Amino acid sequence: MKYQTCAVLICIIWDFVHLNIYQFHNFVTVFTRSMASKTQVGFVGLGNMGNPMAKNLLKHGYPVIATDVFPESCKEVQELGAQVIVDNPAEVAEKADRIITMLPSSPNVIDVYTGPNGILKKVKKGSLLIDSSTIDPSVSKEMAAAAEKLGAVFMDAPVSGGVGAASSGKLTFMVGGAEEEFTAAKELLSCMGANVVYCGQVGTGQAAKICNNMLLAIGMIGTSETMNLGIRLGLDPKLLAKILNMSSGRCWSSDTYNPVPGVMEGVPSGNNYQGGFGTQLMAKDLGLAQNTATNTRTPAPLGSLAHQIYRMMCARGYANKDFSSVFQFLREEEGQ
Amino acid sequence: MKYQTCAVLICIIWDFVHLNIYQFHNFVTVFTRSMASKTQVGFVGLGNMGNPMAKNLLKHGYPVIATDVFPESCKEVQELGAQVIVDNPAEVAEKADRIITMLPSSPNVIDVYTGPNGILKKVKKGSLLIDSSTIDPSVSKEMAAAAEKLGAVFMDAPVSGGVGAASSGKLTFMVGGAEEEFTAAKELLSCMGANVVYCGQVGTGQAAKICNNMLLAIGMIGTSETMNLGIRLGLDPKLLAKILNMSSGRCWSSDTYNPVPGVMEGVPSGNNYQGGFGTQLMAKDLGLAQNTATNTRTPAPLGSLAHQIYRMMCARGYANKDFSSVFQFLREEEGQ
Amino acid sequence: MKYQTCAVLICIIWDFVHLNIYQFHNFVTVFTRSMASKTQVGFVGLGNMGNPMAKNLLKHGYPVIATDVFPESCKEVQELGAQVIVDNPAEVAEKADRIITMLPSSPNVIDVYTGPNGILKKVKKGSLLIDSSTIDPSVSKEMAAAAEKLGAVFMDAPVSGGVGAASSGKLTFMVGGAEEEFTAAKELLSCMGANVVYCGQVGTGQAAKICNNMLLAIGMIGTSETMNLGIRLGLDPKLLAKILNMSSGRCWSSDTYNPVPGVMEGVPSGNNYQGGFGTQLMAKDLGLAQNTATNTRTPAPLGSLAHQIYRMMCARGYANKDFSSVFQFLREEEGQ
Amino acid sequence: MKYQTCAVLICIIWDFVHLNIYQFHNFVTVFTRSMASKTQVGFVGLGNMGNPMAKNLLKHGYPVIATDVFPESCKEVQELGAQVIVDNPAEVAEKADRIITMLPSSPNVIDVYTGPNGILKKVKKGSLLIDSSTIDPSVSKEMAAAAEKLGAVFMDAPVSGGVGAASSGKLTFMVGGAEEEFTAAKELLSCMGANVVYCGQVGTGQAAKICNNMLLAIGMIGTSETMNLGIRLGLDPKLLAKILNMSSGRCWSSDTYNPVPGVMEGVPSGNNYQGGFGTQLMAKDLGLAQNTATNTRTPAPLGSLAHQIYRMMCARGYANKDFSSVFQFLREEEGQ
Repeated sequence: MKYQTCAVLICIIWDFVHLNIYQFHNFVTVFTRSMASKTQVGFVGLGNMGNPMAKNLLKHGYPVIATDVFPESCKEVQELGAQVIVDNPAEVAEKADRIITMLPSSPNVIDVYTGPNGILKKVKKGSLLIDSSTIDPSVSKEMAAAAEKLGAVFMDAPVSGGVGAASSGKLTFMVGGAEEEFTAAKELLSCMGANVVYCGQVGTGQAAKICNNMLLAIGMIGTSETMNLGIRLGLDPKLLAKILNMSSGRCWSSDTYNPVPGVMEGVPSGNNYQGGFGTQLMAKDLGLAQNTATNTRTPAPLGSLAHQIYRMMCARGYANKDFSSVFQFLREEEGQ
Repeated sequence: MKYQTCAVLICIIWDFVHLNIYQFHNFVTVFTRSMASKTQVGFVGLGNMGNPMAKNLLKHGYPVIATDVFPESCKEVQELGAQVIVDNPAEVAEKADRIITMLPSSPNVIDVYTGPNGILKKVKKGSLLIDSSTIDPSVSKEMAAAAEKLGAVFMDAPVSGGVGAASSGKLTFMVGGAEEEFTAAKELLSCMGANVVYCGQVGTGQAAKICNNMLLAIGMIGTSETMNLGIRLGLDPKLLAKILNMSSGRCWSSDTYNPVPGVMEGVPSGNNYQGGFGTQLMAKDLGLAQNTATNTRTPAPLGSLAHQIYRMMCARGYANKDFSSVFQFLREEEGQ
Repeated sequence: MKYQTCAVLICIIWDFVHLNIYQFHNFVTVFTRSMASKTQVGFVGLGNMGNPMAKNLLKHGYPVIATDVFPESCKEVQELGAQVIVDNPAEVAEKADRIITMLPSSPNVIDVYTGPNGILKKVKKGSLLIDSSTIDPSVSKEMAAAAEKLGAVFMDAPVSGGVGAASSGKLTFMVGGAEEEFTAAKELLSCMGANVVYCGQVGTGQAAKICNNMLLAIGMIGTSETMNLGIRLGLDPKLLAKILNMSSGRCWSSDTYNPVPGVMEGVPSGNNYQGGFGTQLMAKDLGLAQNTATNTRTPAPLGSLAHQIYRMMCARGYANKDFSSVFQFLREEEGQ
Repeated sequence: MKYQTCAVLICIIWDFVHLNIYQFHNFVTVFTRSMASKTQVGFVGLGNMGNPMAKNLLKHGYPVIATDVFPESCKEVQELGAQVIVDNPAEVAEKADRIITMLPSSPNVIDVYTGPNGILKKVKKGSLLIDSSTIDPSVSKEMAAAAEKLGAVFMDAPVSGGVGAASSGKLTFMVGGAEEEFTAAKELLSCMGANVVYCGQVGTGQAAKICNNMLLAIGMIGTSETMNLGIRLGLDPKLLAKILNMSSGRCWSSDTYNPVPGVMEGVPSGNNYQGGFGTQLMAKDLGLAQNTATNTRTPAPLGSLAHQIYRMMCARGYANKDFSSVFQFLREEEGQ
């Protein structure tokens, strides 16, 4: 992308004589932005995740123009050279034609895109808008439709991996949106993640994220119940984990992130369930899964119960513990 | 017993000077039986699983003496050289000091061991009794206690793997019982299985089996819900499976036995859910898990709901389909 | 407005000397509309429920001006004297200052109120807008806020009772909105229902409806499981129902709408689960409950599982049967 | 029963000429015991429930002969005139031909009836054995079969109502067993309870008890979720309870034993969930329901989840609170 020669350009144009006007238009848009490499990239939402992500963009040489509702959140990236604007996504959109948003939930995304100072108020034609928030896929679709009316492209690209992966640039991005825009999106996302997976039409990035986390929650609670039951039946926890992991009960929660203290090193269960992926965040994602299942009238009995269990845990003081603490939640001894 | 060489015996006795009498007694027992290789092995329960298991014992050169409530079940092994006795476990126990039992459920095991014609009526001192049925671990413990009173050893050794694995001698045995007897048990079980895992005290073989199958059921239903939800949200099933399998949602049901037709080859979902592990059998194992959890007062919310779902499936015509048919059960389109 | 007598007005004004300006303004609004009895009432949504409701308004002497997306739905009320407008809620709002809406779901309500031809496009100041649809309470709140900006009043007034109760004017209305408007709303709703209950601020009518139906679904499934279990344990169903109904297991589903055929007369279980309240409608209401619980981060484990069960039933051919058919769904005999 | 005249006796005998010998034998047995009124009644199990029950027998003039594993449990009834035997049910059976047992769980019942010092070791022909423990109905059937072999009659008669009802003689007895013995059983049970309901063959008393408590648990959790959801949606709890109680959501837990503090007086929710029916006891009964459902292969999804929730509560410190404390368990506010 960085060292294009006219020769390449000619070859590409050569191939173009058979394409129709619409495709050509898209090509030009993509090509323009690609050429625009190292031009400013907007970043909205400099929270726990957004901060290290923006830093990785800076590290890769992209000029960043950032904004956040909390001005102090932008200090770090400002010191690293980013231009900072006080809580005004519209102004960012005026200055950058590639923008990444990383926000806590659907209402924030709606506000940042369609609010009075929203991106869409001043978005330039041909802009590429990438939302890495985890939100309801139907909201992603709405944003994409609104952007399209203004000649801009919206893609959803939620991440898997936590603050650690964000800092080390090892996130996984699950990307939904027009396939012909994927290359341009990948250029930026590759600076922040190790895997950038194209999932399909807009909203499917969210869908993949939500699906994965729903199955993850089910696997984690299932592993916790199973380990707990096995221990009560006299099995050694390490041996039980070993047996499960060589059998059909095997899952990521049993073989990579075991919730039982002492079975594995370097996981939150070994550290009193600190760090990792908070119960409250899992409850949020399961809420999205639940809403999505409800809206598409899809039965999801275990996903639904997993949601309820994480919700109960939030009500009982586990909100900020790692989600593998469900083992502890289920296990404590009876009074008598 | 019959073919000892003095040299070996002397070496072993040499090591024995530091052992106490009890250990010596055990040693002699174990040694006796180990040496007894190729003496008769009893086999009670020649059903779908027991039949190929007994054949594999014959193939490995063990004389087999078999019995079953249905005499015709014994025909095949009889033709292969087994001695057959008409429905009388006690008589088998009179003639063989190593017996394997493979029965459908707890009441059958109780009857075969402690009934009027039960093994324990005529069991010889020092006999090794291995039960490969999948039953309640508390029943295994009862049988072990009853056998011990008569000077015999009872071990539980339930299997994982179906009729195919039984035929090809690729079963996995999960073995519970006195550790010093494990070698003797393994000698026989290795003829019928590829993995023989020692799990701990008597009953822990059952515990491991039950735990694995509970987590398997949870993973399978979870995978089915998740795939179904993803498909409804516009994801391609193969792509979704790929994403899950490289992420934290990964489990055996998603990466090895995917329940969605067309995602994987060589699994029951590709064959209209025929073959494999029947829904009714899974419901039975989940019933055991449920009883065990109830009796040990262990919460198992997802395992419990998984049990209910497989129970509902049995009530709705899925009893004889592979347990991955839960995908189909959850998915069918709405009338309107 | 048109037929006030000075005497009444004077008495009322007499009481008014202690009221502040704001209250006086409200009084005038309410008073005006109350006096306006027998002026035109708008009706949007002439479906299975809306049709008999509008007829009851006509019966009570109210001139009705009706509209629906399907013009043919308005034929019956037209023949009974209603003025009919072709699919244009805005035009209805231009002509009537009291409007009742009865629509299938949240998106329809949003469209009828805020769409291009929506009520709010032409609503008159001081109008009373009553929505009897069952929708998400957060949508009711949005509609109320939008109406308030235009000087109109929006109340939610979902119903309990089906087509039969709608025809006989025996519905129960659960009403949310400004308390000072309740009298005016009740005047109209009393023509269509036997009970009109004030629930609190806007949205609480929906909340009450959703809560009731969630508990109803739980009670119905619970009764079905319990009756089924009791029958399998050898109890006579009528006797079991009698015992439950005199004990702490008693609920509406056991004593008034028993799901077991033969236990009670005049209920859908006695008529092959025809008529009554459809499984699909229950699934919809439980979906609302689920969304509402998720959005307010409220654990609702049984409500959530009830939702899943009704959703599974829809997937298995029960969509149009009465919701008490869950007894049948859970009960069918096993194949073997 | 007490004031028979020869005339009556003659009439009865007159009717007897058409009866066969077996029936006559039964008649004589029943008649004999009935005549035996005010002869000694055995009582095994003088715990929290058994103590007040035995006292009520004494109050009604029955000589009581009591035993318990804890001799001190018998002190009170001894002071009131009961004959006490040190932990020996067999000896009680030697002296009394009507015995009531009130024990904590199935294993205790098995021991008291069939153990080395068990009732059946010395039971007299024609004795009436009434077990008021709440246990697995299959154990009741086993005991009945064992008693029948010895010419004695066993009936199950579990109670509903707690220590208060036991003291005031207001228990409800649900009785299973031979119908022709019901009159004799009722004579005794009426001294201790206000309702004595015949449920059918042996085991159906347990079945009725278990079914009622399963539905009760479902109703209680359902009511708690519903009230909690309604409150979060802005409804006043008293108003919501009122609406539910006049609608289809109505159940015993909403209208008689509401779990929300302040809604109702004189219930445990108004007293910090002290007194009432403990969570641990409910968990035990739900465990019985679960085992019974599993053994009869009956789906019970909500009953099963209710069991899990009460089990989780036990693990989280609610074991000794009233079972309506599930409202508190589900409700506590989130940390953040």
